[in-house]
Amino acid sequence: VELDPVDPGRMALLVEQLGRFGANAHGGVDRPVYSPAWRDAQDFVAETMAGVGLSVSRDQAGNVFGRLEGRSSDSVVLTGSHIDSVVDGGRYDGALGVLSGVAALETLVATGVAPSRPVEVVSLCEEEGSRFPGASYFGSRAILGLVGEEELTGLRDADGVTIEDAAREAGPDLRRLGECRRSDISCFVELHIEQGRRLQDAGAQIGVVQTIAGLKWLRVVVRGRTDHAGATRMEHRSDALQGAAEMVSAVDAAVRSRGGVSVATVGQLRVLPGAPNIVPGQVEFVVDFRDTTQQSVDALEADIRAACSSVAEGRGLEAELEVLRATPPLELDQRMRQTISAATAAVGVTTLDVDSGAGHDSQTIGRHVPTGMIFVPSRDGRSHSPAEYTSPQECAVGASVLAMTLWQLAWED
Amino acid sequence: VELDPVDPGRMALLVEQLGRFGANAHGGVDRPVYSPAWRDAQDFVAETMAGVGLSVSRDQAGNVFGRLEGRSSDSVVLTGSHIDSVVDGGRYDGALGVLSGVAALETLVATGVAPSRPVEVVSLCEEEGSRFPGASYFGSRAILGLVGEEELTGLRDADGVTIEDAAREAGPDLRRLGECRRSDISCFVELHIEQGRRLQDAGAQIGVVQTIAGLKWLRVVVRGRTDHAGATRMEHRSDALQGAAEMVSAVDAAVRSRGGVSVATVGQLRVLPGAPNIVPGQVEFVVDFRDTTQQSVDALEADIRAACSSVAEGRGLEAELEVLRATPPLELDQRMRQTISAATAAVGVTTLDVDSGAGHDSQTIGRHVPTGMIFVPSRDGRSHSPAEYTSPQECAVGASVLAMTLWQLAWED
Repeated sequence: VELDPVDPGRMALLVEQLGRFGANAHGGVDRPVYSPAWRDAQDFVAETMAGVGLSVSRDQAGNVFGRLEGRSSDSVVLTGSHIDSVVDGGRYDGALGVLSGVAALETLVATGVAPSRPVEVVSLCEEEGSRFPGASYFGSRAILGLVGEEELTGLRDADGVTIEDAAREAGPDLRRLGECRRSDISCFVELHIEQGRRLQDAGAQIGVVQTIAGLKWLRVVVRGRTDHAGATRMEHRSDALQGAAEMVSAVDAAVRSRGGVSVATVGQLRVLPGAPNIVPGQVEFVVDFRDTTQQSVDALEADIRAACSSVAEGRGLEAELEVLRATPPLELDQRMRQTISAATAAVGVTTLDVDSGAGHDSQTIGRHVPTGMIFVPSRDGRSHSPAEYTSPQECAVGASVLAMTLWQLAWED
Repeated sequence: VELDPVDPGRMALLVEQLGRFGANAHGGVDRPVYSPAWRDAQDFVAETMAGVGLSVSRDQAGNVFGRLEGRSSDSVVLTGSHIDSVVDGGRYDGALGVLSGVAALETLVATGVAPSRPVEVVSLCEEEGSRFPGASYFGSRAILGLVGEEELTGLRDADGVTIEDAAREAGPDLRRLGECRRSDISCFVELHIEQGRRLQDAGAQIGVVQTIAGLKWLRVVVRGRTDHAGATRMEHRSDALQGAAEMVSAVDAAVRSRGGVSVATVGQLRVLPGAPNIVPGQVEFVVDFRDTTQQSVDALEADIRAACSSVAEGRGLEAELEVLRATPPLELDQRMRQTISAATAAVGVTTLDVDSGAGHDSQTIGRHVPTGMIFVPSRDGRSHSPAEYTSPQECAVGASVLAMTLWQLAWED
């Protein structure tokens, strides 16, 4: 088949239109789940789906679906991503996967040929967990029946609002979340910005994702002793921040000495009591570390623990370490990867096999149904930032590859 | 003269009684200026002053004075300290200087001999600046006419309450602050806990303070670039916290390599945006550093600036440095130091000449009238902490030395 390529102008318009919802003063996007900006954005997505000829439905999590019926009522080929953003995020993370799905289906509808099985594009809610920490992948977990009852009242935003109350404000009734469960999905394919710069560095147009990295969060509490910053001589101190600073450096050295695709980050750190004239008695920080095999994640954890313990011992400080969160790596379905590669060949674009350091809805869904991911380039690798950018041409190439992938999955299969 | 020694039991009782005001659940004291606990504590001090035969007055800053008239209406010999505390502070910092003044005057009144000049003990307000950052030494500055008009509405607590409104709630009318000005003070002597451990280590009962260290606060802002913690390879990062951690270590190394009495502390540090899965784009921290000569303070500042700039340059980060606060060192009045030394000899206690790393009301008052300071031991040097402790015996020795010092200044002079 020769599908019409998706038009770069069409993609630029869609990105610009969706990017208006939650746009802040300095070019970023603030679109936390169930906020007015999020609700308006989902309405825009629903209207756009209807506009290209899809039948729209919503579920009680707040996910929006656009469906193209097939010649059989066989199980569904699903594509999509999420539209919630981190605080001061960009216009592409998640959003581009939803818009590319709509644009791809627009092209496929234009062929006038009905698919052999139903195809749906979904706009998922709360992938980031940025409004409700701990709620990551809420929309995809709802579809899979993986949201715990206790989350509805236990997950609260910074103002203490429960996710159940926040959802009611926006429309969805989370007490009916059980109705979201879908058992009719045959496979999932998600397009996403790379959030790294391997495609840019290699000059490749499309990344075919092989593995989504596993992640752990290790919380470290360092305990020393508060003392007067003026009256306590240097040799009499047990300064928790001096210990933590050495640990932060040691974590970086440990991950760099492993080389390869391992990454580790200290992005959150709190000093107590936190006055300029008091020697810190306690410091708490979180290490986020990731790799593509469970063995490497575990080895990295051992290195980080050893580094922190060694610093604490050398300084006579206490260090308490606790795993807050762990997501195993996921190797994506081999047949889905082959299908995406075949689609890139049919469209005629340059590709690179890549791994994803970031987590995605695909990581949750991919444990239950065959899943594939398509990456498009991120300028300078920037993401979770107003600086996110993928050119209209690059977006159009991605949507065209997605359209061809869906064709193979739902028309030719 | 042979003065009756102050009774340890009397000191223990006074410390215990004053320590009840603002006592928190874990043995600490929360007594921010103009709070209900502070007001009740000043009332207790006023009653105790009256109880030992002093005439009590209050000024419009909230300072409480107990006065013993002299045979002449010559200028006043003043002693005292402050009763406001840091958050979760101890029962001795400041409070012991007020209570020792009252106990010393009780002993002196008991001699039945009127002083040749008036003697007063003062309980000063807001030395710490812990409720109103920037208001340090508010009570002593009010006496000296050094409070700026703009402070009354410009200084606000964490809830946004101005110092003027907070004072009105507790009684004082800060619009009449001009009336606090005293030009009749001939000299000042302050007893305080050491807040270090040189007296304990040397086995000395009393420290005769020579110099109060000068201080600077240097604010450092480190700017890198936010990136995704999973998708950004280690070699592509500009991590502001990795830079700041190296600077924090370098500041410590710089001050230690100077040796001597130099100290430097990073007690406040903030990471932005502060999420575990975002590479930090900005870190702000404050370096508090002190030494006993201005030359050493300035040399230390140069070392710290060089260390931070060198780290920033090596990592391609931006570093912005700004002095937030600077207090010059103060060498205390030589004649007052000699008087205190003579008093320790008369009482028969072991002494050590020491410098003060901490700032005190004496540092403000001592720039205007001859001032001396008496230190008593701090167990393990602990201060600004519920762990502050000076034994009743050590407190009594301090109060006895203070009584003999006041005798020499106001009776024999």
